[in-house]
Amino acid sequence: MKTLYFDGQLSLREVPDPKPGPGEALIRVRLAGICGTDRQILKGYSGFRGIPGHEFVGEVVECEDKRWTGRRVVGEINVTCGHCEWCRRGLGRHCVSRTVMGIIGRPGAFAEFVTLPVANLHEMPNEVPDEEAVFVEPLAAAAEILEQMPLAPGARVAVLGAGRLGLLVAQVLRHAGADVTLIGRSEWKLKLARSWRLNTVRLPSGAGAHGNAPLHAHGDSPLLAPRSFAVVVEATSSPQGLEQALQLVEPRGTVVMKSTFHELANFDTANLVVNEITLLGSRCGNFATAIDLLRRNAIHVEEMISRVFPLAEGLEAFGYLESASCLKVLLRNE
Amino acid sequence: MKTLYFDGQLSLREVPDPKPGPGEALIRVRLAGICGTDRQILKGYSGFRGIPGHEFVGEVVECEDKRWTGRRVVGEINVTCGHCEWCRRGLGRHCVSRTVMGIIGRPGAFAEFVTLPVANLHEMPNEVPDEEAVFVEPLAAAAEILEQMPLAPGARVAVLGAGRLGLLVAQVLRHAGADVTLIGRSEWKLKLARSWRLNTVRLPSGAGAHGNAPLHAHGDSPLLAPRSFAVVVEATSSPQGLEQALQLVEPRGTVVMKSTFHELANFDTANLVVNEITLLGSRCGNFATAIDLLRRNAIHVEEMISRVFPLAEGLEAFGYLESASCLKVLLRNE
Repeated sequence: MKTLYFDGQLSLREVPDPKPGPGEALIRVRLAGICGTDRQILKGYSGFRGIPGHEFVGEVVECEDKRWTGRRVVGEINVTCGHCEWCRRGLGRHCVSRTVMGIIGRPGAFAEFVTLPVANLHEMPNEVPDEEAVFVEPLAAAAEILEQMPLAPGARVAVLGAGRLGLLVAQVLRHAGADVTLIGRSEWKLKLARSWRLNTVRLPSGAGAHGNAPLHAHGDSPLLAPRSFAVVVEATSSPQGLEQALQLVEPRGTVVMKSTFHELANFDTANLVVNEITLLGSRCGNFATAIDLLRRNAIHVEEMISRVFPLAEGLEAFGYLESASCLKVLLRNE
Repeated sequence: MKTLYFDGQLSLREVPDPKPGPGEALIRVRLAGICGTDRQILKGYSGFRGIPGHEFVGEVVECEDKRWTGRRVVGEINVTCGHCEWCRRGLGRHCVSRTVMGIIGRPGAFAEFVTLPVANLHEMPNEVPDEEAVFVEPLAAAAEILEQMPLAPGARVAVLGAGRLGLLVAQVLRHAGADVTLIGRSEWKLKLARSWRLNTVRLPSGAGAHGNAPLHAHGDSPLLAPRSFAVVVEATSSPQGLEQALQLVEPRGTVVMKSTFHELANFDTANLVVNEITLLGSRCGNFATAIDLLRRNAIHVEEMISRVFPLAEGLEAFGYLESASCLKVLLRNE
């Protein structure tokens, strides 16, 4: 089968079709999304070698349990042992011996076929098209924040970074009743957010990129007062985002970190201690929550698709992501 | 009056006696404690210039409200405006225009006299001697953790750093019902902790001082398994402590940061995100809680006093702290 393969370099490669193991399904990928984490993997994040890709929608083509055959599915990316302490606690996403599709020790979805345990699959309801279903994984990650912390109705929340993840997080938290401000640099992305009636603030390019410079908004936008948000979600995918988030959060507030990147961050921990800030790491979430949000049309996702490339043009797709100001780029297995 | 004064250099200096303002008391300091923060101030932390010192017990010698005159008191160190949002929320310790005795914009207690608003004072019960009362401020800071987060009975907690703060935190959390392990490098400090029936693990000198090296215990002690504590309190006063704490905490666990230091910390935020760790900054606490703990003899403090110097020998006291392996050093105003 055709795949994108990373072995220090990303290339298009033919590999043998995978065989589903016991309890697993063979899935024909229909559509896969490229995530910030995939680009970090290409920079060395997680040391992954193999087929990347962990956002997909596909169709089961082979499975011991025949009831699954033919179903259109999305799949949870963490494949767990099922019997360690974390699995027993219902937190399999933290299983110590987990593999993670396209990230740790398991082939991913930038391929014609992928295998996953049936336990990881969720059937997609008919009313959610492929172009929305492919957002289930990142939308679940956005919704994970709500499982980790209470969010008071009307809580002042800033989402820092108007990229793919930031746009999802802002919508999810607004849907949960928070008073959300999305902060970014790209006018067209912020305009899209405003078309969804999100509040936005534009930072001039380069502002606050160096640690302690105050975060001034662009042009006529109001100054972003330091310490003015109860919750700040860091979704910039850059090590500088953390320092900016710590400027914006109020004392006793929470900074949620969603970005993973390969570099170390450095920051003034005295600020964290003196202002008694909570820094909360947040990763994958429940697929069921995300599927439900999509079924109820609560979240805009399709408008975030910048381009769809055939899988065979996957290298071009990554090149496009590096060169263009875009949002979600998809790979279609034609 | 005689004071220790910091203007880039610490010196012994005569300054005019302070005059209490409206609502303030003039307090004759009896005993003051030197804190890690004081030593950080000497390295440039908080940019403070003036008389340091924020741990003290003294006697009110002058006050508008005559009922306070002659009382033996300790004093909350944050002096607040009383009308900002934080003060109104009952979180005056985060008042935006606060001064902090001996740390931000207000003379401290390494002096014969100090002034504080009466609202900041707590009368000490007779059964708590000066040598214990001088620990109220750091003990309150240790107990602050319990106000910020729930702690399940029997929760596995590591306290990293067996210095003054670590010894207080370990006792407070054990008293609250946690299963506490104190981790340090100094055998005599750990021995003191064991005499209080705390569990201890000794790290060999230099172990884990460089980021990702596993934290091996000394000699026959068991290996400190990574990800084995639900809560890790970072009380090492060093930028390396954070990385070590992140190694020891389990997924979805909490690292409490108590140390303030002048340097930036750098760490792998991907670990925080992937393992969904909460990093909680924790600073000053309620004095009433600490006074109550001392009155009930719940916490050992007097054994932590390494030496008492007269105020006039304050420079020698700081020199002693730099050169010796010691715990609490006090200054007595004789």
